Amino acid sequence: PDEAAIEAVRLRDRQLTKPTGSLGRLEWLAEWLAAWQGKSNPTVDRPLVCVFAGSHGVTAKGVSAYPSEVNRQMLENFAAGGAAINQICAAYGLGFKVFDLALDMPTGDITETEAMDEKACVATMAFGMEAIAGGTDLLAVGEMGIGNTTVAAAIYTALFGGPAEHWVGRGTGLDDEGLKRKVAAVEAAITRHRDHLNDPLEILRRLGGREVAAIVGAILAARLQRIPVVLDGYVATAAAAVLHAVHPSTIDHCVAGHLSAEGAHQDALARLGKIPLLALGMRLGEGSGAALAMGVVKAAAAVHRDMATFSQAGVSERLS
Amino acid sequence: PDEAAIEAVRLRDRQLTKPTGSLGRLEWLAEWLAAWQGKSNPTVDRPLVCVFAGSHGVTAKGVSAYPSEVNRQMLENFAAGGAAINQICAAYGLGFKVFDLALDMPTGDITETEAMDEKACVATMAFGMEAIAGGTDLLAVGEMGIGNTTVAAAIYTALFGGPAEHWVGRGTGLDDEGLKRKVAAVEAAITRHRDHLNDPLEILRRLGGREVAAIVGAILAARLQRIPVVLDGYVATAAAAVLHAVHPSTIDHCVAGHLSAEGAHQDALARLGKIPLLALGMRLGEGSGAALAMGVVKAAAAVHRDMATFSQAGVSERLS
Repeated sequence: PDEAAIEAVRLRDRQLTKPTGSLGRLEWLAEWLAAWQGKSNPTVDRPLVCVFAGSHGVTAKGVSAYPSEVNRQMLENFAAGGAAINQICAAYGLGFKVFDLALDMPTGDITETEAMDEKACVATMAFGMEAIAGGTDLLAVGEMGIGNTTVAAAIYTALFGGPAEHWVGRGTGLDDEGLKRKVAAVEAAITRHRDHLNDPLEILRRLGGREVAAIVGAILAARLQRIPVVLDGYVATAAAAVLHAVHPSTIDHCVAGHLSAEGAHQDALARLGKIPLLALGMRLGEGSGAALAMGVVKAAAAVHRDMATFSQAGVSERLS
Repeated sequence: PDEAAIEAVRLRDRQLTKPTGSLGRLEWLAEWLAAWQGKSNPTVDRPLVCVFAGSHGVTAKGVSAYPSEVNRQMLENFAAGGAAINQICAAYGLGFKVFDLALDMPTGDITETEAMDEKACVATMAFGMEAIAGGTDLLAVGEMGIGNTTVAAAIYTALFGGPAEHWVGRGTGLDDEGLKRKVAAVEAAITRHRDHLNDPLEILRRLGGREVAAIVGAILAARLQRIPVVLDGYVATAAAAVLHAVHPSTIDHCVAGHLSAEGAHQDALARLGKIPLLALGMRLGEGSGAALAMGVVKAAAAVHRDMATFSQAGVSERLS
């Protein structure tokens, strides 16, 4: 983090026409933007929502309420502007890009084999790193992929331990029988890969999800290019958790956008030391929670940039 | 509430390309807008933030960290576009109006006398009712007035009982000595008016705040004109609490925008049965929390209106 930029933001904040501290997390967000953009005048001029779409072999185990053909259909829906995320981006003036991560070639079924071989995992991370090549000053990372809450639950179980049912939720809306199949699938995946769960990147490769690997890449690339990141919900946070396990500081430039209603997202965020900006009971994915949070970040940047100072406005300062 | 409009919104929601329930409070907000606008296609086309500004005789008791001259100065700051609320309204495309409630004529010091006589209280409520005459489909009510968290704390204490210190907070940033003076002022006001605290409207008149009376009027007028209302923080909620004490249903068309860091706002909202949309640690007033929440409401309306249905997008529905 750029400590000089943080100090500059604090100095200006104390001169703005409001009691110091009265804007709570908005003030913190201005500092956070400055810290990771490395500039004393933080901006949200080119906010970008990136959605990474993957398909998952583990869907063969009946872990989702929806068929995998929805992946391709939703990609077309994104392109046509018909999904929830399209409307949120339009409402807040956010850029939006979708990345097709070999949707027609599902990852391996993690209950039986590895999700990705080493080459595929590295290539997908690299692809994720390229996602922000077009330029942005604030990145939101989200995902879409039938079966990917199963994959994320497996990653959380591998990273944090504990019974699988603690981490598993109903995803897009599983019934009780489906939930049992999902817990069983996560347990089977952990058992299948149990001798290889010490290395976070190996957990990523084996339990996978191409969208999780791509988000790992995007978060790293954003760090190197001084772009703060807003994490979406349950699945996107699994990518941050992999990086956190490598070293906690790797996700210091990330803020949690929204507390998902899915599974143990609250517990996952707590373990990463992240306090979500919003908690609206959503569990959709596709970057929707992060995009809503970006609306708040955008306002925080505008407030810091455009408010008058006490001397500019001729407003009296505090009595003591 | 318009039950037919709610049903129409639910029917459309179930056809949109997302799992039912996956947008959490956004779905609820679309229903809430429809219920109180009385139309099956809820809109946020002309959102309006109204800020009511009052001055308070109780400031003579040293209850604020800022001098009362700030009231007039901040009014000029609002007009010049230099306050925090101006930037939030600009970020989300919200209309903004400020109402000067006789700023140069403070209310009576509530520790010694009545805040308003009957005529002034009624006139101020009527003024508040006129605030939305220019037309809007979603109203946010906020306030500004040095000393008004003292007034709000007195109203909460009168309405809900309990020791004054439970309801009193540091406002714009009181030190420990100031906080003691503030608690003492609320206790003195309660003692002074103790024989007249059975009638909520009499509590309003005696403990007052013209901005609180005007917000009471605005909330009522909005109800009659089918305009849903977003409440700002600690002070605006005191107006809602007065109405709630008259009859709980009078504020069914109001949503709490933001949980304030001030005093016992959380307890006040719980007593009104309101779950705030946002909790960003703010305590500024001037409609800032409600305006940020309006950004979310606006997105909720856009999502409901513009998303594609399963059949429009050719997306498969759930398996069972």
